[in-house]
Amino acid sequence: MEHKVREWKQVMIPYEQAVEELKVKFKAIRKEYRDMNEYSPIEFITGRVKRISSILEKCKRYNIPEENIDEMEDIAGIRVMCQFIDDIYKVVDLIRARDGKDLSIVYEKDYIGNPKDSGYKSYHIIIRYPVQTAFGTKEVLAELQIRTLAMNFWATIEHSLNYKYQDKLPLDIKERLKKTADAASMLDLEMSDIRNEIIRAQLMFEQKSNL
Amino acid sequence: MEHKVREWKQVMIPYEQAVEELKVKFKAIRKEYRDMNEYSPIEFITGRVKRISSILEKCKRYNIPEENIDEMEDIAGIRVMCQFIDDIYKVVDLIRARDGKDLSIVYEKDYIGNPKDSGYKSYHIIIRYPVQTAFGTKEVLAELQIRTLAMNFWATIEHSLNYKYQDKLPLDIKERLKKTADAASMLDLEMSDIRNEIIRAQLMFEQKSNL
Amino acid sequence: MEHKVREWKQVMIPYEQAVEELKVKFKAIRKEYRDMNEYSPIEFITGRVKRISSILEKCKRYNIPEENIDEMEDIAGIRVMCQFIDDIYKVVDLIRARDGKDLSIVYEKDYIGNPKDSGYKSYHIIIRYPVQTAFGTKEVLAELQIRTLAMNFWATIEHSLNYKYQDKLPLDIKERLKKTADAASMLDLEMSDIRNEIIRAQLMFEQKSNL
Amino acid sequence: MEHKVREWKQVMIPYEQAVEELKVKFKAIRKEYRDMNEYSPIEFITGRVKRISSILEKCKRYNIPEENIDEMEDIAGIRVMCQFIDDIYKVVDLIRARDGKDLSIVYEKDYIGNPKDSGYKSYHIIIRYPVQTAFGTKEVLAELQIRTLAMNFWATIEHSLNYKYQDKLPLDIKERLKKTADAASMLDLEMSDIRNEIIRAQLMFEQKSNL
Repeated sequence: MEHKVREWKQVMIPYEQAVEELKVKFKAIRKEYRDMNEYSPIEFITGRVKRISSILEKCKRYNIPEENIDEMEDIAGIRVMCQFIDDIYKVVDLIRARDGKDLSIVYEKDYIGNPKDSGYKSYHIIIRYPVQTAFGTKEVLAELQIRTLAMNFWATIEHSLNYKYQDKLPLDIKERLKKTADAASMLDLEMSDIRNEIIRAQLMFEQKSNL
Repeated sequence: MEHKVREWKQVMIPYEQAVEELKVKFKAIRKEYRDMNEYSPIEFITGRVKRISSILEKCKRYNIPEENIDEMEDIAGIRVMCQFIDDIYKVVDLIRARDGKDLSIVYEKDYIGNPKDSGYKSYHIIIRYPVQTAFGTKEVLAELQIRTLAMNFWATIEHSLNYKYQDKLPLDIKERLKKTADAASMLDLEMSDIRNEIIRAQLMFEQKSNL
Repeated sequence: MEHKVREWKQVMIPYEQAVEELKVKFKAIRKEYRDMNEYSPIEFITGRVKRISSILEKCKRYNIPEENIDEMEDIAGIRVMCQFIDDIYKVVDLIRARDGKDLSIVYEKDYIGNPKDSGYKSYHIIIRYPVQTAFGTKEVLAELQIRTLAMNFWATIEHSLNYKYQDKLPLDIKERLKKTADAASMLDLEMSDIRNEIIRAQLMFEQKSNL
Repeated sequence: MEHKVREWKQVMIPYEQAVEELKVKFKAIRKEYRDMNEYSPIEFITGRVKRISSILEKCKRYNIPEENIDEMEDIAGIRVMCQFIDDIYKVVDLIRARDGKDLSIVYEKDYIGNPKDSGYKSYHIIIRYPVQTAFGTKEVLAELQIRTLAMNFWATIEHSLNYKYQDKLPLDIKERLKKTADAASMLDLEMSDIRNEIIRAQLMFEQKSNL
């Protein structure tokens, strides 16, 4: 048993380190824009390592042998929150620009263009990330989720409802959650609209001034 | 000039310390609930000290003499984010329970029951908070803003629009922002509704089981 | 068992919070001096909560009933490191000045004037510290250890030897450790001497300049 | 002027990021050993970016044109503190094992085998470290200083004396500082001796047990 605990700790070390390093790296992006007095497409960052109990549960549910957990894509997870939908794609571009440098992109999943049935929206990028530990080099998979504050707000509440009711949400509740996802999306679009209108107004004003 | 900078630094010290201490204290509340495997009414905390330039601007605008800045209520600011509207009032109760202990409440302002014209919603509590510094004891005012994630999402965007356009938002934009505030509130109410419905369903189920 | 773990977690909550708050408070002192461009008597701070296993061990060894652990003085521990011996007494004065405000002093133990047989040196202050938790107010005991970098260097190594050899250090090793404690103290005295000599030289120079 | 400040901020960004990333990486090493219940050769880590005023001063003193500051080796600095002298070389080995991976070693300087005239001891490794910023990739130089707690204790005090007296320490003070450096080294050697003696004793005991 003691031996098993030790083994798991060793397995988790590179994932924990990947999350720590990626958090520092994405927080740096925000700091850089702000240091330069430029608008940052990143509002805030969170990160977490999947708990061992959740990993084992997932292994069971999807019939994954324990020795294959390094194929799991979401043990290391980073969440990037943006103010506007457009910012998400700026962040995606920043990540793509690092492909082949400190990380490599495995694949992307656009749950904004194609939301999940539940109403879930986010842009996911699965990356391969090399970490140097005291016990050697290891390359781990990590999942980057990029989303607006409204998408995050909705997802946080969906998650906490699902957690409390163990994924057995009654159908009518599910329906209502989906409608609120639509409402959250509407809010995001309206906000983007407002911003774009102001930007247009400003450009027109500047062009007039330059005449 | 150098002398002035030094003076301002000394003025700000107790405010900075108050924010640091209050952040640690409110984060502790969340940790305590989670350690006990109980639902935390607090989702996350941020804190900031008003920048000196903003303090001076406010002095000018409201004709406050510089030596009276300790009457300003928002130099030290703490923001508490909750998932559901009900949580806000639980947090308010937790703060009231500390009144006369490590802090004292000066007054409360309910911008949820009475939103600002702009559409702004939050529950504000102004407190007096004593800090011990290397240069003596000082009691400072601090503003606690308690709000849902949706209220915060809206307020963040309103703030960043106002900041970019220096409080001169065109009327139609203002109107639209206000409508989005309503949309955000609807979302909050719907979310609360969903949660309450589930709680009711659960209670009914438990009562049946007890027959 | 699960029940027991939960209970212990609840017991530890106010201690963890006390350590967090005290760390923030002592770090603030250093920041305040540096903000004012003054020499800080505090070089750095560490803090820890005694592990549950160590608490139980101590209960056993000293025959303390588990329900009396709130009489234990070192569950919450804060360590304040100083550059020079004189700084220790400045820190002691800063703490005494807070007595009856945010903390109250229970007693002091001067292991610098009266080192332990092992050679251990530090200034200890036991305080009572009130914490507000989500589950009510609680007053806990905490131990503040104030020491120079050299005292800390020696104590760290002594601790790690004792830990490795489970408090069964052979007599000759103990003797040698004690001699190194003397060597560390000599170093501290010499360093203080150098500093004082420079201060004296400077004062003389300034007096001459003023003639 | 404003333009100049902005330019400097941009110059400093990759250095600040390098320090943040390296601090996280070296702290991870310590965490890894402790997670595995193994002795960590790293006791603690600090990091700092040279202040712009100090960079300019150094440019002046050594006649370095401002556009060549990326040849400066100590703008980004990481300090690794160890308990015992032997640990320093274990840390050096860990860094060498990463050469060509996330960092590359430019050169090493052994101020332990060859202390500076002042008495200063430390093991220095100059590395090249690539950082990805929002504004592109940049490779910076960084200086890793690896030292024991005693070496650090001495260096901290030497630095603070030099700082206070602007590098104009009187000769006799310098002599005394050097003697204290010797005393600090003696302490380190004695401590190592004690540790080795215990390890030898233990091995002999184990061999006897195996007869």
